[in-house]
Amino acid sequence: MAKAADMYFRVDPWKIIEEGFDPARARVSESVFSLANEAMGVRGFFDEGGSADSLRGLYVNGVYSVDRIGKSYRGIIDHSHFLIPAADWLKTRITLDGEQLDLGTARFRDFRRELDMRAGTLTRSFVWQTASGREVKLTFLRFLSMTHGERGYQRVTLEALNFDGEAALSMGLGFDTVHEGREHCFWQEPAARRDGARLMIASKAEGSGQQVFAGAAFSLPGEPAYFQEEKSVWLSAPVRLRKGQPVSAERRAAVLYTGETGDALFARGEQALDACAAVSLDDALTAQRAFWENWWRTADILIEPAGKEEEAAVSAEQQGIRFCVFQLAQTYHGGSMRHNIGAKGLTGEVYNGHAFWDTEACCLPFYLFTNPAAARDLLYFRYNTLPGARERAAMLDCRGACYPIATQNGEEACPLWQHASLQLQPSTAVAYGIWHYVRVTGDEDFLWRCGAEMLLEIARFLLSRVGRSSLTGRYGFYGVMGPDEFHLMVNNNAYTNYMGSRTLTYAADTLSRMRAEQPEAYAALAKKTALEEQEPARWREAAEGMYIPMDETGLIEQHDGYFDLPHTDIDAIPVSDFPLYDHWSYDRIYRTDMIKQPDVLMMLYLYNSSFPGAVKRVNYDFYEPRTIHESSLSPAVHSILAAELDKMDEAVRFFGYATRLDLDNYNRNTREGLHTTSIAMAWANIVYGFAGLRSDGERLAFAPRLPARWKRLDFSVLYRGRVIRVRMEREGSSFRLAEGEPVTVLMNGEPRTLDAGGLFVPCA
Amino acid sequence: MAKAADMYFRVDPWKIIEEGFDPARARVSESVFSLANEAMGVRGFFDEGGSADSLRGLYVNGVYSVDRIGKSYRGIIDHSHFLIPAADWLKTRITLDGEQLDLGTARFRDFRRELDMRAGTLTRSFVWQTASGREVKLTFLRFLSMTHGERGYQRVTLEALNFDGEAALSMGLGFDTVHEGREHCFWQEPAARRDGARLMIASKAEGSGQQVFAGAAFSLPGEPAYFQEEKSVWLSAPVRLRKGQPVSAERRAAVLYTGETGDALFARGEQALDACAAVSLDDALTAQRAFWENWWRTADILIEPAGKEEEAAVSAEQQGIRFCVFQLAQTYHGGSMRHNIGAKGLTGEVYNGHAFWDTEACCLPFYLFTNPAAARDLLYFRYNTLPGARERAAMLDCRGACYPIATQNGEEACPLWQHASLQLQPSTAVAYGIWHYVRVTGDEDFLWRCGAEMLLEIARFLLSRVGRSSLTGRYGFYGVMGPDEFHLMVNNNAYTNYMGSRTLTYAADTLSRMRAEQPEAYAALAKKTALEEQEPARWREAAEGMYIPMDETGLIEQHDGYFDLPHTDIDAIPVSDFPLYDHWSYDRIYRTDMIKQPDVLMMLYLYNSSFPGAVKRVNYDFYEPRTIHESSLSPAVHSILAAELDKMDEAVRFFGYATRLDLDNYNRNTREGLHTTSIAMAWANIVYGFAGLRSDGERLAFAPRLPARWKRLDFSVLYRGRVIRVRMEREGSSFRLAEGEPVTVLMNGEPRTLDAGGLFVPCA
Repeated sequence: MAKAADMYFRVDPWKIIEEGFDPARARVSESVFSLANEAMGVRGFFDEGGSADSLRGLYVNGVYSVDRIGKSYRGIIDHSHFLIPAADWLKTRITLDGEQLDLGTARFRDFRRELDMRAGTLTRSFVWQTASGREVKLTFLRFLSMTHGERGYQRVTLEALNFDGEAALSMGLGFDTVHEGREHCFWQEPAARRDGARLMIASKAEGSGQQVFAGAAFSLPGEPAYFQEEKSVWLSAPVRLRKGQPVSAERRAAVLYTGETGDALFARGEQALDACAAVSLDDALTAQRAFWENWWRTADILIEPAGKEEEAAVSAEQQGIRFCVFQLAQTYHGGSMRHNIGAKGLTGEVYNGHAFWDTEACCLPFYLFTNPAAARDLLYFRYNTLPGARERAAMLDCRGACYPIATQNGEEACPLWQHASLQLQPSTAVAYGIWHYVRVTGDEDFLWRCGAEMLLEIARFLLSRVGRSSLTGRYGFYGVMGPDEFHLMVNNNAYTNYMGSRTLTYAADTLSRMRAEQPEAYAALAKKTALEEQEPARWREAAEGMYIPMDETGLIEQHDGYFDLPHTDIDAIPVSDFPLYDHWSYDRIYRTDMIKQPDVLMMLYLYNSSFPGAVKRVNYDFYEPRTIHESSLSPAVHSILAAELDKMDEAVRFFGYATRLDLDNYNRNTREGLHTTSIAMAWANIVYGFAGLRSDGERLAFAPRLPARWKRLDFSVLYRGRVIRVRMEREGSSFRLAEGEPVTVLMNGEPRTLDAGGLFVPCA
Repeated sequence: MAKAADMYFRVDPWKIIEEGFDPARARVSESVFSLANEAMGVRGFFDEGGSADSLRGLYVNGVYSVDRIGKSYRGIIDHSHFLIPAADWLKTRITLDGEQLDLGTARFRDFRRELDMRAGTLTRSFVWQTASGREVKLTFLRFLSMTHGERGYQRVTLEALNFDGEAALSMGLGFDTVHEGREHCFWQEPAARRDGARLMIASKAEGSGQQVFAGAAFSLPGEPAYFQEEKSVWLSAPVRLRKGQPVSAERRAAVLYTGETGDALFARGEQALDACAAVSLDDALTAQRAFWENWWRTADILIEPAGKEEEAAVSAEQQGIRFCVFQLAQTYHGGSMRHNIGAKGLTGEVYNGHAFWDTEACCLPFYLFTNPAAARDLLYFRYNTLPGARERAAMLDCRGACYPIATQNGEEACPLWQHASLQLQPSTAVAYGIWHYVRVTGDEDFLWRCGAEMLLEIARFLLSRVGRSSLTGRYGFYGVMGPDEFHLMVNNNAYTNYMGSRTLTYAADTLSRMRAEQPEAYAALAKKTALEEQEPARWREAAEGMYIPMDETGLIEQHDGYFDLPHTDIDAIPVSDFPLYDHWSYDRIYRTDMIKQPDVLMMLYLYNSSFPGAVKRVNYDFYEPRTIHESSLSPAVHSILAAELDKMDEAVRFFGYATRLDLDNYNRNTREGLHTTSIAMAWANIVYGFAGLRSDGERLAFAPRLPARWKRLDFSVLYRGRVIRVRMEREGSSFRLAEGEPVTVLMNGEPRTLDAGGLFVPCA
């Protein structure tokens, strides 16, 4: 696999910088320069549009249209929702000398884009040269408020460099953006209103009927004139330019999706716009910097190179890991229980804005240790979408609740039945997420209020889906697709059986404790769910009778018959065959021992403390050479386990481009959007892999292993009201309790108390 | 499974008769009263249309439109063709007293439809009562020429019963028929021409661009006036009625699809119409009777009841089996190598007019023993579509030729990847068909000219698709779906492995013999196909190393892991759950030991003489109780094996409604069209099942077992230029050589020579 980094951006510890504009990379840059604040997202496109290659993506979280797929078989969805570009609140036009600015055709120089990760701002500047030789320096600033999800800001600055004269600047709002893949604008003719230097517009999405409002208060350097175009409204003003004197225009926008419609939405939007306009752009920017400064205080990861030779590579890693956690925080930072984390965040339309089980399996650890409230809110999303999961289970002729493999709103949205109907991992991942969250945070209140109900319904689903061998009577899941998506309709997938067994046991244990400790809540839950007395005992029976196909050496067969499958020598696959889904016939992918991503190893990662080292080793050694890593989360899981098994070279090799997956367009498809959930694994790769954090045992555990090319690794974790600051260095690692009460943790397997005096763990 | 016969038509040995019109059964009757002649087909709808429930189906074999499905994964088709209703050459309108005839609203009496299987005619008559009390007896006759595929005939007779007066009769041609499922007329605005009492019209199908011509010479009882409507042209004439004096109008039509277009097609159509109009309708009808009389001479099956008690049931069976073979001969009787046998023949739009592997597995024996030239022509269809099969193999990243699971034109048309990509049985069935045809007919010329090339390419495909176990090195097919379609993506399906092995061996044997016996043809084939010297040896190696999962008792595991699957008690499934595809979630069907139709047993049926009786018995006893018979061909295969295993009660029970599947609407969906390929198994059920014919051994074999309720069974088989007449009676069976040279056959396993003296085999 000759994937290769494509280093293009300037390395800087806190910024992503592009110098010069390469049209061939236009969309990669747009993805990388995406801004988001959970409520909405914008790709780093040119405000003024133009003819350069671009995906003008402006998204509002939770806003989608709906496809009618048509009826096929029972249990296969007949409609599906998909993210659509929503309000275009950055419409801008600049004309000078009779030319309209278009970087696809214009002459320009000194092009620079800069994403500042301490401010959450994107700045773009260049000097535009008109045909007549006039030069004007243009600077575009934009940011999305991290504290007020509906607010977005833009400042456009013009500075004549070699003339005095007049330009024209138009700023507008519209609902005219076309969904690229479907070549259709899903927005109906909008309602609009002008009020002096304010514009307001609202429209309704086809398919979903969702209504979105966008308003903006403009501050223009001249008297604005109003005009309309199809589905958009504009203000235009002359800009008097004097050589060397910058002139700016600003917009403070509010983009709202509240579920309200018509006049009620308009009224709500107007209030939001008033509140937004009550704060100056500069004050908003100051608040934005403060937010990020505070955020980085506990979320930052600092890496220093071991020496001069490693400096370039490690500086790039430093920039990369900050970019990963910055984008992850932009995509989701809690506060809304209506949103989840799309595979591409809010940076593109591929994957349709859908969230997968990546949320619980890959992203949750990052939030558990940097933003536990956000971790809880992600679980609330699952609780709020429990009705949809119940409906889905019924569609599948099952009881309880089956969580969707792909969704924005809680309904199953994956039209591929083989994924939607055979993958049970979304449901077991939700159960795992609850377990993991409660274990790490101790938030039992959540367990009693929401978790128990979800667990109960998931356990019901699993019991109605599990089968029993005709030969042995053992329980097992038949006809499934495990995390390795290269085998489908398999029986006794070890991951599915094991996760199912743990889920059933946890559900029974939880109800049993609840009955004892929270009798009233238990009684209410039992009534609400019509729980039958003997149900938890049946879950236990299935859990205990579940078949886990492990031999005497600890080697676990991924599923029945896996060991017998024909072998594929993955090293012999020519580079030009990747990605396999594009180059191999679909069925060909599914019939050898080649696996796409960790499956047995995934369960050894998730329930790490439940398996002895020898089991991890024998399975790692068996499965690693059979794994093609066609999922971008795959190398990180391997890296974490390799580090644990003291295969540091391999751990570092798999870490590889983890931190710069998108910055270096490693998978050749960053143009479509960022790999948001995958880059969450870059954080896990460092914290679980190299600091050896483990959060699935009785106690928090560390086992630091510093890669040779690093001199130092600093990071913090939040843990039950504590801030634990970790500094790993060559001679050893120090742990400091920056906030909170002393706590006993496992250090390389030994219980140690971390108190105000800190802990030092010498290098092994 | 409480499927039940719905006896509606009058029992008659040679006719299907409906007395009275039941609107609720309108579509079932339309299907049953379908006429076809291989080139075209018409359902038994009312010529005059009207508001009664109807599917106005007029089909031209090989004429279809094309759906763009859109790109998904490699190897999954992105377009698909489907049968569309074509030229409506039976348009008729009758008005009297200002009323237009519409049996959905009109008053009428003495309604009768009659399909005469010795004439291939459909007659419909009734007395129409207008509001004013006038009564006119109307008789509609239609037939399609069995010797000139393009010719269709209609006669309309009006007889005033209680008045003198004038009616108006319009007859037309059109391309305005709508595809019901897709709610669209796929025909473009036609070109039309009138020439006196002739009309001609031609149109082009959307999607495929195919052009069809329809012309008719009308003989009307008055001066015709011409008029047009959207996509149709008409002649209208007054009809002077005198009480008690019948008046008739006739049409002789020619419907042509030749691949020609525009003026060339029109010219060809005009010639065809001239030729058609040169023969009177009565003469054509005489010729039609002669065709069928000759055909029945060797194809008829005569059944007589054992006694008075059995008379009703056996008369119904007699009618039923004649209906089955009549419809099969209508659908296909050879002469065209462009056509195959659609699952519904030309009697409906469900299954899109596609042919499946049913042709070789179910239908071929009927043709081999009643019309060997047609059997050969069916194999020519596969030869002519070899290029499409080569393309399909390439789409699947394989070599050679992969025959489609569903097709009209040779291209894969099944949009369900799990069937199209995983079912290898179309390819092995084609190889089996060649083997079977050559074995029965001795036509080695076909083998050298066409068969060898198909076998070579199929063997190549299989070798590129086969895998080898990582544990044992044995060959096997991984990721397949066997004939039992309730398990998919399974490994080492016994049927697929065994059929694959036999195919590879046969291909190698054939090439080896060809090299020795037909060196020039062999050299030409090797050159044409770039055959490498060592290829056949590799096929043999795979064939010999193929894993057939049989235990020491002879029990064959359907596929790896089948015995371990959870058990479904099929008797416990409520009747209301059928058909399962409509009532069970799709994935649920696939994960227990319930099977849809014979899989292991299918291979024991096809290669019957290759397995000892004990193997058949142990597998029959194991699989029969696990089979739900959701395919209508399933009971016949079980019946044939049950008879062989001396389970006569079970054989008779499975025979059940075989002969009257559609006449009695046994599967509740005859309204959609006839189960054309399934009813082929009714013939096999009698001839293979009760006469014990076996055609897969070195010699033709018989082992008569007369069901207790029959006194006598008479039928004939054509065999290598011989006509063998079989008469089975209670005391024994006699075999008579009506034509041809003596031949040695196996009688109950013993070689016996059948010569002019005949043979008598006493009852065992």
